[in-house]
Amino acid sequence: MPDKLMRMRRASSDRRPVMLAIAGDSAAGKTTLSRGLARALGEGRATSICVDDYHRYDREERKGLPFTPLHPDGNYIAIMEQHLQLLATGQPILKPVYEHRDGSLARPELVEPGEFVIVEGLLPLHSKLSRACFDVKVYLDPPEEIRREWKISRDTGKRGYTAEQVLAELDRREPESEAFIRPQRGHADIVVRFAPVPGRDDPPGTPLSAELLLRPTIPHPDIAAQIGDDDLRAVHVKLGRDSDGRPVDALHVHGHAPAEESRLVEKAIWNGLQGNEPLPERLGELEPGVRSEPVALTQLLLLAHLFAM
Amino acid sequence: MPDKLMRMRRASSDRRPVMLAIAGDSAAGKTTLSRGLARALGEGRATSICVDDYHRYDREERKGLPFTPLHPDGNYIAIMEQHLQLLATGQPILKPVYEHRDGSLARPELVEPGEFVIVEGLLPLHSKLSRACFDVKVYLDPPEEIRREWKISRDTGKRGYTAEQVLAELDRREPESEAFIRPQRGHADIVVRFAPVPGRDDPPGTPLSAELLLRPTIPHPDIAAQIGDDDLRAVHVKLGRDSDGRPVDALHVHGHAPAEESRLVEKAIWNGLQGNEPLPERLGELEPGVRSEPVALTQLLLLAHLFAM
Repeated sequence: MPDKLMRMRRASSDRRPVMLAIAGDSAAGKTTLSRGLARALGEGRATSICVDDYHRYDREERKGLPFTPLHPDGNYIAIMEQHLQLLATGQPILKPVYEHRDGSLARPELVEPGEFVIVEGLLPLHSKLSRACFDVKVYLDPPEEIRREWKISRDTGKRGYTAEQVLAELDRREPESEAFIRPQRGHADIVVRFAPVPGRDDPPGTPLSAELLLRPTIPHPDIAAQIGDDDLRAVHVKLGRDSDGRPVDALHVHGHAPAEESRLVEKAIWNGLQGNEPLPERLGELEPGVRSEPVALTQLLLLAHLFAM
Repeated sequence: MPDKLMRMRRASSDRRPVMLAIAGDSAAGKTTLSRGLARALGEGRATSICVDDYHRYDREERKGLPFTPLHPDGNYIAIMEQHLQLLATGQPILKPVYEHRDGSLARPELVEPGEFVIVEGLLPLHSKLSRACFDVKVYLDPPEEIRREWKISRDTGKRGYTAEQVLAELDRREPESEAFIRPQRGHADIVVRFAPVPGRDDPPGTPLSAELLLRPTIPHPDIAAQIGDDDLRAVHVKLGRDSDGRPVDALHVHGHAPAEESRLVEKAIWNGLQGNEPLPERLGELEPGVRSEPVALTQLLLLAHLFAM
């Protein structure tokens, strides 16, 4: 069915792209998740942007400011909203560019929306107007101690900071994370958490499991129809309560399931979406050569959402 | 009457700004004219932008290209149109920035439209969509030999080129001036030409006279009602034919008129617009300390147009 839907979309004269938001705090895994999606969709069909490019100040200017880049006042929020509306209606934008490498604001670049637009960043779900631009809204919600590890590892590597600087920055950002980043969780259609399964004593090297809270704010594709009972070790859905007490379907993807079983589920989902094309090889890639089946499955589930829109 | 209109505008809840275009070739006097207008309106009320900021390539990249910055393909025309529409409907833009100083593309800047938006540049009247954004469309049309003098003087001064480089560049640009810049003249409501009056033998230092062709494409304020018969030496209107044969009102502002007479006409026009506020001192300023009454009168006539919208 999604396959048919997809062909319909392709043939349709409706030029409005499907818009996906992936929001979350710094180093929550947004780029890893969205890069795999963009690759699976293909460059010609998917456009990815990061709304951290809407930072209003460069690194030098920020030194004199009483807030961090997480604060809406440190970003061109009204322009972000305007550009999201333009993309959502199929129009090009001239997007600002923030260089993470040296913290400078560089020359803007032309972005033309493809059939799918993936928007990741710190604040894509901050305002009502920005949220209204999306078909599917995802919030990445790793446990805080895992996010801190990821942030230290990335920022001491690629971005040239020391571990002490990263930890101090995390503390400095915490009040604004609480005030502006984490409230976006409540506006997501899907909350994704990569974490060890509580109570299990898995050996080192076991991939993190994924939990996807599927809120009844959008229709969710019927994954159960595409996978058999044998797949229960890799994936299962359970009715539960969100941390705020609201009822929610929780889809569990087990990091401890044998990789070959997970691959069978991945193929089943992919075949439902794309007919007999081979599974994209780099789904689930964490870094070159390192792969996580729960990440791959999460990406496939998100693709199923996109294709159903 | 314009005075009353202006107060009405100020009190109105209609947030759409009055949009003025000043188009023309390189060194045609666009900045001189628009700077005086912006100053007279005041920073709080007027927003000025230059659409040459929509250049797509920096100076280095242009070296390998088969066209000059005058070519629409060398500019983000679709983004210019989009931004003009946004400004015309009262919305902010994040405008790209082209640095004439070194020919680089720099970080973009936020522009929020005031009550009046002045848009100058090479191609603001290039496309139907961009033209539709303006209330008043002006084309600056100096005689080619005067423009060449102005361009050499400016580009060897402020922009660091040699006279030979400027002349070679003028030749290289000529086919694109003909193809893309000069056709905009036909879309203007007002064509302004600063030039010596043919057949007169004025002494050196006599300011250039101005001729304003007032096309019947927009309503023109009734200047005659504000000035007396005594002002005929400074300003007069004459029915004539445009170079394409179409009938047109030509308003002549005489550079050879005594400055005190021109000043009386300026005051009469300004009083009609702004009641008893003093005439803005720097109207007509060509460079610090150098003033042209025909430029001041042209600016006042354009202000009268803006206030009548």
